[in-house]
Amino acid sequence: MTITSSTVRSRTDLCTAIENELGGLIGKRASVATAYGPNFARLWTLAGQNVLGGKFVRPLLLMETYDALRPARSRHRETAISIAAAIELLHYSFLLHDDVIDGDLVRRGHPNLIGSLLAEAGDLPRPDGGLHWAQTGGILMGDMLLAATHQAFARADLPHELRLRLLDLLEHTINETVAGEQLDVGLGDGIIAPDLETILVMCGYKTATYTFELPLRAAAALAGADFAVETALATAGRHLGLAFQLQDDLLSTFGDPRRHGKDAFSDLREGKETAIIAHARLTTSWQDIEPFFGKPELNGPAGEYVRQKLSDCGAETFVQGLIEEQMQAFNSLLTSTIPPGARNVLLDLAGQLEGRQS
Amino acid sequence: MTITSSTVRSRTDLCTAIENELGGLIGKRASVATAYGPNFARLWTLAGQNVLGGKFVRPLLLMETYDALRPARSRHRETAISIAAAIELLHYSFLLHDDVIDGDLVRRGHPNLIGSLLAEAGDLPRPDGGLHWAQTGGILMGDMLLAATHQAFARADLPHELRLRLLDLLEHTINETVAGEQLDVGLGDGIIAPDLETILVMCGYKTATYTFELPLRAAAALAGADFAVETALATAGRHLGLAFQLQDDLLSTFGDPRRHGKDAFSDLREGKETAIIAHARLTTSWQDIEPFFGKPELNGPAGEYVRQKLSDCGAETFVQGLIEEQMQAFNSLLTSTIPPGARNVLLDLAGQLEGRQS
Repeated sequence: MTITSSTVRSRTDLCTAIENELGGLIGKRASVATAYGPNFARLWTLAGQNVLGGKFVRPLLLMETYDALRPARSRHRETAISIAAAIELLHYSFLLHDDVIDGDLVRRGHPNLIGSLLAEAGDLPRPDGGLHWAQTGGILMGDMLLAATHQAFARADLPHELRLRLLDLLEHTINETVAGEQLDVGLGDGIIAPDLETILVMCGYKTATYTFELPLRAAAALAGADFAVETALATAGRHLGLAFQLQDDLLSTFGDPRRHGKDAFSDLREGKETAIIAHARLTTSWQDIEPFFGKPELNGPAGEYVRQKLSDCGAETFVQGLIEEQMQAFNSLLTSTIPPGARNVLLDLAGQLEGRQS
Repeated sequence: MTITSSTVRSRTDLCTAIENELGGLIGKRASVATAYGPNFARLWTLAGQNVLGGKFVRPLLLMETYDALRPARSRHRETAISIAAAIELLHYSFLLHDDVIDGDLVRRGHPNLIGSLLAEAGDLPRPDGGLHWAQTGGILMGDMLLAATHQAFARADLPHELRLRLLDLLEHTINETVAGEQLDVGLGDGIIAPDLETILVMCGYKTATYTFELPLRAAAALAGADFAVETALATAGRHLGLAFQLQDDLLSTFGDPRRHGKDAFSDLREGKETAIIAHARLTTSWQDIEPFFGKPELNGPAGEYVRQKLSDCGAETFVQGLIEEQMQAFNSLLTSTIPPGARNVLLDLAGQLEGRQS
């Protein structure tokens, strides 16, 4: 693939380039995997279907930012595509281990890798054998995707110092994401007190770091941008990431399930500690909500009742206010430090927040 | 640390060097971890205690082989120590995910990381909350150790081609180990038929590859040995590794629990598909053994009865024969292809097999 920096590249071209790169990374490994028998190869086939069916949010953010920063001679563009693809593998690695931890078998209305393995296992002589087998597949495939991510970073065709910089970014990202996942589980399991500050820190660590900060910082580093530009992009990205996460919570609780595709009351049923719940806990309505919170049987009229209570107590408005705060902070960072092209990439992303239904 | 290649180094010196390197790798990360709160930092503290309390079997094998190959000017010796330490982190990453998969809370008579987290969690409002929290810690810490292993390989101060060679070795090792773990679980869960060939392949993949082949190949590559030497070392190592694994199975089933420290009937109770069981299945004694195999309540007289049946049907002798076959294949490889010093390292290791009680 030879594309010069002067070419105007459409998002479709970028998607194709990312898809080809991911197809290559996965295809090579799927081919090696066949030597180890059908069960091992099946892990790569299923993972490949899931990864290649994605929207490439993170790789697109990296590549659009990279291109917008108009790096001299675009000399690291091919490497940027391979790093972008590796970040998508990292995303699926995190999703898989998150699904194992949460016991989830479905993602966006379709069986995830674990759900597929469970369905294929059929009847087994041991109780729960199928689920154990399927979740083992989730742990092991997550490990292999994490390994594949590191291999791509480690082999990046870059000057030594720049490769080390990207390895630093990867290390930092994994630390924050793992810390966020642990906080999330600690909140859910009642190990960690569910105050608002902890919940917001958790959202930032668990999602914003790897979804926004990592692609933006990697793009800046690969494009040779000033560190001030990298920092401004990363900070803006974190605010945007937090806004997206808070909006996810609002949509899950108050949105239209026909639009967002998730179960209408799943967050409430799971007892997920969100900013909505943190606010509700501080109001007198909590005594009416608490008996239903975290109850696996919550459904229908009782679910509607809790939703109404959460709205009436001001939790919905409160979280909308938090999102506005994040967006104000985001906008205030779009100063001259960030070059106009990169600013447009971020504004385009921010535009997707408005009117979002899923 | 500056040690010239001409210095005769004792195993104690090597242990100290490996311990210092591991202490540095873990200490740096434990220090960064404190910024993410006590629960996150606790993962690194517990992992550090477990890793640093180990016997360093794999790093010692790498370093003793490296030194025995008398590389010119020992120019990669410091890097070899860091790769040796990274392989120990990989070992603990595998152990942790294996413990999560098997639901184990104890290793060698002490609580493992998961058992420690469970004990520290105390009473929680949600059923099984403590175990979920503790196993989540196991998954996440395994991920971080896997990441740390890759970081050490990726940052190795080596010529480009040699670093790529080590990254290839790491990738191959992870593939085989994961394939072996999946086979092991598939055998236990009744997904994969428990024939002898599959069980022997599983043992090779799950343990011999990363415990013997990886350190030996890495040592040869770092010492700049001929590929013929590397291949001979690796093949000899695989035979030795399989012999060790088969002996582990014999010890677990027929050995003295006061010596090996494991529960006397745990393999039988878990329904672990070993070479012993594969042989017994083919004899008329299996009809007497099967009703007890994989039964969680197996103990005392019934356990002794099964053990006696396994011995009487020839399974013990059969597996002893398999070990002898592996050792013959091992010995036949100790030809002039492997330099005398490296041969002695392997013979020393093989000597540990005889009279082993734990």
